Amino acid sequence: MVDGCEVRDSLRIDGAFSKRNSDIVALEGPLSISVSYGGDIIPLGISMRTPGKDSELVYGFLLSEGIISSSSDVLHFEINDNMALVEIKTNSGFNPENYVRRTTMSSSCGICGRNTISDMLHMHAPVLSEDLLLDYIGFSSSIEKMTASQVLFQQSGGTHACASFTQEGELVNVFEDVGRHNAMDKLVGAHMLQDSITPSKCILLVSGRASFDLVQKSIRSGFSIMLAIGAPSTLAVDLANEHGLTLACFCKESTMTVFSGARRVK
Amino acid sequence: MVDGCEVRDSLRIDGAFSKRNSDIVALEGPLSISVSYGGDIIPLGISMRTPGKDSELVYGFLLSEGIISSSSDVLHFEINDNMALVEIKTNSGFNPENYVRRTTMSSSCGICGRNTISDMLHMHAPVLSEDLLLDYIGFSSSIEKMTASQVLFQQSGGTHACASFTQEGELVNVFEDVGRHNAMDKLVGAHMLQDSITPSKCILLVSGRASFDLVQKSIRSGFSIMLAIGAPSTLAVDLANEHGLTLACFCKESTMTVFSGARRVK
Repeated sequence: MVDGCEVRDSLRIDGAFSKRNSDIVALEGPLSISVSYGGDIIPLGISMRTPGKDSELVYGFLLSEGIISSSSDVLHFEINDNMALVEIKTNSGFNPENYVRRTTMSSSCGICGRNTISDMLHMHAPVLSEDLLLDYIGFSSSIEKMTASQVLFQQSGGTHACASFTQEGELVNVFEDVGRHNAMDKLVGAHMLQDSITPSKCILLVSGRASFDLVQKSIRSGFSIMLAIGAPSTLAVDLANEHGLTLACFCKESTMTVFSGARRVK
Repeated sequence: MVDGCEVRDSLRIDGAFSKRNSDIVALEGPLSISVSYGGDIIPLGISMRTPGKDSELVYGFLLSEGIISSSSDVLHFEINDNMALVEIKTNSGFNPENYVRRTTMSSSCGICGRNTISDMLHMHAPVLSEDLLLDYIGFSSSIEKMTASQVLFQQSGGTHACASFTQEGELVNVFEDVGRHNAMDKLVGAHMLQDSITPSKCILLVSGRASFDLVQKSIRSGFSIMLAIGAPSTLAVDLANEHGLTLACFCKESTMTVFSGARRVK
């Protein structure tokens, strides 16, 4: 197995058959990036990344965000325990004022607002419902209901979707957006504003991959079953397990791979 | 045409043939989100979203980020000119201290660090090289060189890739990550740290879609030609045009759609 992956237990479901398995999953983990500038330590935030090429990641991040202009702007560079600290020249052109956020979080990426890795990994979440069950043979034909509703995608090829369904497979809500997190936020917001059926009574389906932040949003808003068309990350699987979320990925017409909470799958 | 899309001019290339065309592209635009809390206005950041369901987006964002627990925590809600202001109850459980970033940007999403929309759309960028040309018939077979190098993706199905090539189609660097932006940052960082061939002499290829932030990173790091396997967003196309970046999307073996800078394609 190559670097950047780990194995997670899974349950492969193919029609009426299921088989205990293990899958290779892409690693996702937090890297905290801070800059030392004129004697001040300025935390730039936390990147959720696949570990392995952290020096390249940090240098590229600093350049493409306009904080340094070349590697010669870096006086000292160190990474320990998933924390990178970069001392940069005070004449590098970096203006901390331009980047200071007096504020909170960010553009729905779900992580940016946190100062530390422990802030990010710790979250208050509702207890997830154990009442909802997933009958996958019955449900799998519902996937095409989301596909058929992705009108923006059909026109542009450039959007993700998130949808909610009843246990019986009826489509409740579906939203599209250029950002996966935005599609999820729109779905969660619609459930709040409609004040009809709550997420705890719905099955969530996302068009893309199951990353840490989407799993986090799912748990926080009370979904107990999350299905993804794409692959999961290690942190997504681990967070789902920790909070008891049923997470199934690679969902197709009659097959899926359950990475967490198989007790809700029948 | 449905809401959430706009038309952009394009040049469709199919082998040796090319045709002026227009394509339907998913809308991407900034929405600034601020909270009014106990008399203070707290900017939460800017979301790059597809306009159209902004109320749902903001409510869902506030819930899934733990800022409100239900819609009854919202006292007043208004959106004007792509700026949302939400007044929330002071007993909503929101603790601004938990979210305050003393700091800068974020997890490579390329936007989070900016306080205002004009901060975000304005950027200092190098003048892009006019020397590099794309001979697509010759180059297109190079796409499979990136695919063959995506070892993490082959194992996990859960990663994106960014690669750089010489004008002749030789693979220079390739990086994978669970985050598209991270793969791009790693690539840019590698070019800095190697100090060999510069991005201005390379063709960039990304495995996913061309969003605003990836185009921004591409321009900032000096790539003049960016190819994407996936679709673009409107803001990506507009930014590419503004800075003279050659942006081609939907790249396959012998076909691609050029949205900007067709002068570099021969």
